[in-house]
Amino acid sequence: MNTYGKIFRLTTFGESHGIALGGVIDGVPSDIEIDQEEIQNELDRRRPGQSSIVTNRQESDKVEFLSGLFEGKTTGTPIGFIIRNHDHHSSDYDNLKETFRPSHADYTYQTKYGIRDYRGGGRSSARETASRVVGGAIAKQILKEFGISTFAFTSKVGTIGLPTDFSVCDVDPKTIEANIVRCPDEITAERMICEIEAVKKIGDTIGGVITGVIKGLPVGLGEPVFDKLQAMLAAGMMSINAAKGFEYGMGFNGCSNKGSEMIDHFTTRDGQIGTVTNNSGGIQGGISNGEDIVFRVAFKPVATLLMETEGITLDGRLQKLKVKGRHDPCVLPRAVPIVEAMAAMTILDSLLLGRATGKIL
Amino acid sequence: MNTYGKIFRLTTFGESHGIALGGVIDGVPSDIEIDQEEIQNELDRRRPGQSSIVTNRQESDKVEFLSGLFEGKTTGTPIGFIIRNHDHHSSDYDNLKETFRPSHADYTYQTKYGIRDYRGGGRSSARETASRVVGGAIAKQILKEFGISTFAFTSKVGTIGLPTDFSVCDVDPKTIEANIVRCPDEITAERMICEIEAVKKIGDTIGGVITGVIKGLPVGLGEPVFDKLQAMLAAGMMSINAAKGFEYGMGFNGCSNKGSEMIDHFTTRDGQIGTVTNNSGGIQGGISNGEDIVFRVAFKPVATLLMETEGITLDGRLQKLKVKGRHDPCVLPRAVPIVEAMAAMTILDSLLLGRATGKIL
Amino acid sequence: MNTYGKIFRLTTFGESHGIALGGVIDGVPSDIEIDQEEIQNELDRRRPGQSSIVTNRQESDKVEFLSGLFEGKTTGTPIGFIIRNHDHHSSDYDNLKETFRPSHADYTYQTKYGIRDYRGGGRSSARETASRVVGGAIAKQILKEFGISTFAFTSKVGTIGLPTDFSVCDVDPKTIEANIVRCPDEITAERMICEIEAVKKIGDTIGGVITGVIKGLPVGLGEPVFDKLQAMLAAGMMSINAAKGFEYGMGFNGCSNKGSEMIDHFTTRDGQIGTVTNNSGGIQGGISNGEDIVFRVAFKPVATLLMETEGITLDGRLQKLKVKGRHDPCVLPRAVPIVEAMAAMTILDSLLLGRATGKIL
Amino acid sequence: MNTYGKIFRLTTFGESHGIALGGVIDGVPSDIEIDQEEIQNELDRRRPGQSSIVTNRQESDKVEFLSGLFEGKTTGTPIGFIIRNHDHHSSDYDNLKETFRPSHADYTYQTKYGIRDYRGGGRSSARETASRVVGGAIAKQILKEFGISTFAFTSKVGTIGLPTDFSVCDVDPKTIEANIVRCPDEITAERMICEIEAVKKIGDTIGGVITGVIKGLPVGLGEPVFDKLQAMLAAGMMSINAAKGFEYGMGFNGCSNKGSEMIDHFTTRDGQIGTVTNNSGGIQGGISNGEDIVFRVAFKPVATLLMETEGITLDGRLQKLKVKGRHDPCVLPRAVPIVEAMAAMTILDSLLLGRATGKIL
Repeated sequence: MNTYGKIFRLTTFGESHGIALGGVIDGVPSDIEIDQEEIQNELDRRRPGQSSIVTNRQESDKVEFLSGLFEGKTTGTPIGFIIRNHDHHSSDYDNLKETFRPSHADYTYQTKYGIRDYRGGGRSSARETASRVVGGAIAKQILKEFGISTFAFTSKVGTIGLPTDFSVCDVDPKTIEANIVRCPDEITAERMICEIEAVKKIGDTIGGVITGVIKGLPVGLGEPVFDKLQAMLAAGMMSINAAKGFEYGMGFNGCSNKGSEMIDHFTTRDGQIGTVTNNSGGIQGGISNGEDIVFRVAFKPVATLLMETEGITLDGRLQKLKVKGRHDPCVLPRAVPIVEAMAAMTILDSLLLGRATGKIL
Repeated sequence: MNTYGKIFRLTTFGESHGIALGGVIDGVPSDIEIDQEEIQNELDRRRPGQSSIVTNRQESDKVEFLSGLFEGKTTGTPIGFIIRNHDHHSSDYDNLKETFRPSHADYTYQTKYGIRDYRGGGRSSARETASRVVGGAIAKQILKEFGISTFAFTSKVGTIGLPTDFSVCDVDPKTIEANIVRCPDEITAERMICEIEAVKKIGDTIGGVITGVIKGLPVGLGEPVFDKLQAMLAAGMMSINAAKGFEYGMGFNGCSNKGSEMIDHFTTRDGQIGTVTNNSGGIQGGISNGEDIVFRVAFKPVATLLMETEGITLDGRLQKLKVKGRHDPCVLPRAVPIVEAMAAMTILDSLLLGRATGKIL
Repeated sequence: MNTYGKIFRLTTFGESHGIALGGVIDGVPSDIEIDQEEIQNELDRRRPGQSSIVTNRQESDKVEFLSGLFEGKTTGTPIGFIIRNHDHHSSDYDNLKETFRPSHADYTYQTKYGIRDYRGGGRSSARETASRVVGGAIAKQILKEFGISTFAFTSKVGTIGLPTDFSVCDVDPKTIEANIVRCPDEITAERMICEIEAVKKIGDTIGGVITGVIKGLPVGLGEPVFDKLQAMLAAGMMSINAAKGFEYGMGFNGCSNKGSEMIDHFTTRDGQIGTVTNNSGGIQGGISNGEDIVFRVAFKPVATLLMETEGITLDGRLQKLKVKGRHDPCVLPRAVPIVEAMAAMTILDSLLLGRATGKIL
Repeated sequence: MNTYGKIFRLTTFGESHGIALGGVIDGVPSDIEIDQEEIQNELDRRRPGQSSIVTNRQESDKVEFLSGLFEGKTTGTPIGFIIRNHDHHSSDYDNLKETFRPSHADYTYQTKYGIRDYRGGGRSSARETASRVVGGAIAKQILKEFGISTFAFTSKVGTIGLPTDFSVCDVDPKTIEANIVRCPDEITAERMICEIEAVKKIGDTIGGVITGVIKGLPVGLGEPVFDKLQAMLAAGMMSINAAKGFEYGMGFNGCSNKGSEMIDHFTTRDGQIGTVTNNSGGIQGGISNGEDIVFRVAFKPVATLLMETEGITLDGRLQKLKVKGRHDPCVLPRAVPIVEAMAAMTILDSLLLGRATGKIL
């Protein structure tokens, strides 16, 4: 339940205002060099307080590795790690002890478990995703050995999207990090930042869409029927806090089209079978076909507003509520590395599983 | 890989033109009366040849139960079942032995496994979903004991959608079966049928969207973090052949909104905590909140056209291709019971798992 | 729960007196030739009625394959199969409808599930193991491609055991099939058969021990910590009906020894690292070390006696009971192929899993 | 692979000479008071340096909890914990960098992973079991809420066993802790201690047997077929370092008996169905029958001798070896709490799983 993956498996623990977050990464291929600085870089991309358009909670999010690495390399044994919490203002949440915030997990956790750590959302806080970024950063480094890379970027904030002729597969990952909203198109990025600052000013929040791209996949990843590659990616993405939708290839829009318009005609490239177009988004019958995988994840505007709302008590009394915690006006910029992490872990897991289930002799 | 679920688990087997399809359903709660006729009814809703707008392959799809039921009741032991194939014209596929169809799984299966049953798509055929409908039909009957029901319907075909003021949660399931496209709005249904008949006439295909609704859920289903209820539903839906997208609640559209517009304010109904609106789609923090779960699944237009296309051989030669098999111009009408089946199995699995992981004393 | 294995996975279904037994084998490596006659041979070794010292229930136990094989080869898709029941005298069990037999699963099933198929033991009957033999026979054929073989034999019946100097690893598998008790030592076999015939005559039963040997393993199978190779073998063996103990290498007897007497000294053989002795039984730290794996499984005398015993009713009344069903005076001869099947599936599963988790670059 | 259990799941990490050991416990029932001192007590029972007959490595083994507990109670979210390593003399192991010790996991790890942390056995060290004791201590406290208790004790060291008329089920757990070898019979304990001191003096080691007892189980735990309660217990026990055998009820000895001698006749006690004898060891058909579960685990004499032995290098050269590390002359006294921990986790997992799979309405 708190474990992701079948072979490459991340188990996470930790609450928003507890002593530490952390996790265990199991099924890590052995004898692979790991750059720990690179992992910290990924965590820094997710870190709160990194820019003016994200929460100003101050956490250094330094990861400490406890096992599984020896002389800079993976040993095939589980990698245990922790990230200590520092800047938690738990008293900000005292008024939530007996009141549930609207559109939050307070009520559902309390009902399911009969108890909850109400400080900062406890386990339901997106702070848990820091552990995912660690898992993803390690997965990325292993995937690099296979020539596989993955990147994601903010493609929509509110109603502001990328130009229709923008080519998502040709993005240079450096352009994503060139601005604080993590949108590779400079002009769009500026408009998005303006929009976020505007909603922030009024204590409101805004949603958006993140696009993910996976490049360099061999043909054959993904298990047909229930564990199709798109099903595993969907589960991974929909497990991210605030995610409301997942689509790949032509997605929802492609449904309005005719089959004859959507077929990806075959071609050959450097002696390899490929397709002229990529409406399918890199997967056929649940199995990677060697083209880029392209997908989109919709994120809702988070429900923590810096304006007065109305909570409810366990016994059903409505109660005025003014949240004091520090929160993101828009989760998109910080969700980009999380989407990448989930994609990298999903693909590596498929790759390792595929080694067990594919043609072997 | 061919198993769905953690506690209530369906394992399926069978190829499109093999001897039989079938499966094993494990983790079935014991001592529950099962109406076998009702299961056959569900299979009949998915059956090929049921109307003028679906494939004319003739299969009676009669299910034979081999175990797990005793004197009409579940015994808690696995339910084995088979559905024999009859009307397979395997010779229609002789020309596919060495040629891959575009936008099909032929090439990816062959590369992954080094061998494939090319007749009728083999294991990659949506014929596999008949076994899912059996599993779903049993799940539905068990869910009924808990007051939980699920239904789905065609909400869009090509560009033809339901009226914007259509209330998806108030649908009377009988109206879904009142027409062959399984759309609960009669006028929209007629327009959809016309559209499908038009594309069929020219040998083309068309995509669409199915909306699913789950009613009567208790608060507390779903495991936080990775196995969030929406993640499990997404995986289930995205594992259906031709599915390209999944969203729940306000989904992709809700991302353009502000947080203040999307919050579901609390209220009480019959002494129970509920929400005034349901933008969240019945889930908070991965756990059901007692409101209806509402989701949508996008289906692409299937790639099997009755017009000439171009395949490719293993050694990279393009080859004219005229498909002789019988196929659906639009999969939506037959996908409705499949979406329901996956929803029912996912919810029942969550419910059983929740019995193990929730508050127990 | 009714599934065995992590990658190579067998799911079984079926009751002793139901319509059919069967199963689904998933995770089968693709493109491997399968000899179906060989599978039937293995089933015949487990078949009731095969000799004078086993039950005289007459079942042909013919297996029908429904999927997963194409032109004689595995396709990587699940293999579904069924074995129909024929010679069930269900009326023999009418008196058990409301009475539980001592040392049987009647009472525990009824209490756990609130219902049970009382005919012939229902799901708790060892008849379920026919499906395991099918899975094992396929695993054996795949293992052969890797040079791995497995065999088992009866090494003890009651107090009659093999000579102390008998070399278990040098057994010629043909000598096992040379007699009806499946003991490779002819003189011991004769004594065992006499013993079984003696207990059969008085309507009693007798237990014993089966020794299993796995040869040709590469170094490196087995996952350290919880999924040690010996732990997986133990689980597999202890899941066989009537099994009461498992040991490997020097087992229980080795515990009386000193460490200095038990160390397996290293040597080299054909340039490979090996050990002079094999007290460890082929596994170190949960991982195969390249030596033969040797293990033993203890089987209790089955509780179904052909003499009067005393059952109990659900409301606690003791009741005289005369069993009419047909049963084995000694399960050992028929358990030999079951032990082999569980060993073969366990090893193949470890091998496939090891491909995913071992050194990869 | 480093995770134990299906619902109540312990994932461990950590090497013998790494920074820390630890784990994540998932699937913990919520809202249950946890006594952290009690957990530390259990760890102290496993702690090195606790007496003259165990290793003199000095580790305080203080556990630090990082999550999952709130105001002294479980919250249903994962419990993360770490135990820092202090007294590791890693330089003692420098000579093992390129030499494999006989009857250790050095060679198998190196071959499987292509790399290993050779300091103190790395991951293959029994030091990993400290994390299991934490998981087991929590499981014990939860089981207590259900009236279930578990204890284990040393029943044999070398050839010194308990008196044949010793009643294992009537042991008062306090008598186990009354001596340093953890044998509840005082006179036998003294003889065992003498034996261990004798082998210690000559730098040798000795094996033995631990008996485990589980009391207070309801009828109905355990899943029939592959996940029989005895199979799960066997897997758990055989996953403990140095375990070579598992048996329950009458075990290997019972195999020499006739069925008529082994049947447990029914009786009633306080209106409940029970059995007069308990040859079956508390399980019928894989499901608990309400009687005490009794099992035995055989432990080999550990291979780390304080006398000269002979290792081998990767390229096959034999090499004199004198181990400098500190080790146990007999693992039994410290293995007792580990056996209890594995038993407690296995039973709690079965209990939680049984809530999901048993009769529900």
